[in-house]
Amino acid sequence: MPFVRIDLHQGKSKEELSAISRSIHQAMAETIDVPEDDYFQVITPHAPGELLYDTGYMDIFRSEQQMFVQITMKEGRSLRKKQALYARMTELLEMNAGVRPQDVMIILTENTQENWSFGNGVAQLAPEA
Amino acid sequence: MPFVRIDLHQGKSKEELSAISRSIHQAMAETIDVPEDDYFQVITPHAPGELLYDTGYMDIFRSEQQMFVQITMKEGRSLRKKQALYARMTELLEMNAGVRPQDVMIILTENTQENWSFGNGVAQLAPEA
Amino acid sequence: MPFVRIDLHQGKSKEELSAISRSIHQAMAETIDVPEDDYFQVITPHAPGELLYDTGYMDIFRSEQQMFVQITMKEGRSLRKKQALYARMTELLEMNAGVRPQDVMIILTENTQENWSFGNGVAQLAPEA
Repeated sequence: MPFVRIDLHQGKSKEELSAISRSIHQAMAETIDVPEDDYFQVITPHAPGELLYDTGYMDIFRSEQQMFVQITMKEGRSLRKKQALYARMTELLEMNAGVRPQDVMIILTENTQENWSFGNGVAQLAPEA
Repeated sequence: MPFVRIDLHQGKSKEELSAISRSIHQAMAETIDVPEDDYFQVITPHAPGELLYDTGYMDIFRSEQQMFVQITMKEGRSLRKKQALYARMTELLEMNAGVRPQDVMIILTENTQENWSFGNGVAQLAPEA
Repeated sequence: MPFVRIDLHQGKSKEELSAISRSIHQAMAETIDVPEDDYFQVITPHAPGELLYDTGYMDIFRSEQQMFVQITMKEGRSLRKKQALYARMTELLEMNAGVRPQDVMIILTENTQENWSFGNGVAQLAPEA
């Protein structure tokens, strides 16, 4: 059910994108109870000049490999789970895809169960569904 | 007022994109009280490897034509209206653009009226506006 | 902390994108208490047929230079501040980047402090952080 948007600099191979994608998904499965096959992501690679960010905000030193991970998910996860998600995601991205932890910005937006249709025009998670 | 992001696989003609766009908009007009001319959409086509998804989650069998429709709109629509929206959107997409209902994932995010400016730097929907 | 997505028509130079980006950021710094170095934006240029909108809705006459600015930020800004943001953003975009005020649509989505990680896998804004 999470829907994930990944925005990053262009120039990565399909294999690199896959490693990034899988690391993010694995972190969600391990920390916030997302089923393995509940996997929906959109990657948008960007040309120079399209990703703009401060390279030192909060004393985190970002490189030219900065990426943004914006996750929409239903509300209700605890702060503890979110903290575990952030930590595990950067850990797996570094281990599996060589991404620096400083270069990973994560933004969560929460909505409600009835706000999802996974296909066939049905609100699969709605209360009476 | 809804703002719609459509992410899909590259390779569609301008005419196909238009049919997809119009089907989504017509479904909103018919089911959730969106005026005909309240029409604001962004389509982003993606190269292979940029849209990642499970092809069987929830026993819905997705093809290589999967698309994501993410709608931001003000809060307050009932579950019944949302269900009608999902059903009608997939129906019109199939009828007008040949999109399989299994291939349409829809995600709604709701915000408040004061969070919209339609141009000219004004919050047109804000209470005192 | 705001995370800003800018979707516009392709064909702008890196310098033009920079002027647009900086105008939007300056407006946030001046009106909604965003630190100068709290700067995180993603620009996505679009080919013809990918940005779809009504050119007269609400009697605002949009041109082929329409752009969308979608801002995710933590909840809590007053309506007054949001109104100041919309007004100042269109003013600066016109002055610094030649963008018509009619062509700027702004959408805000609000979330909570714990929903942000600025890097290093930490929830920097979370209550106990």
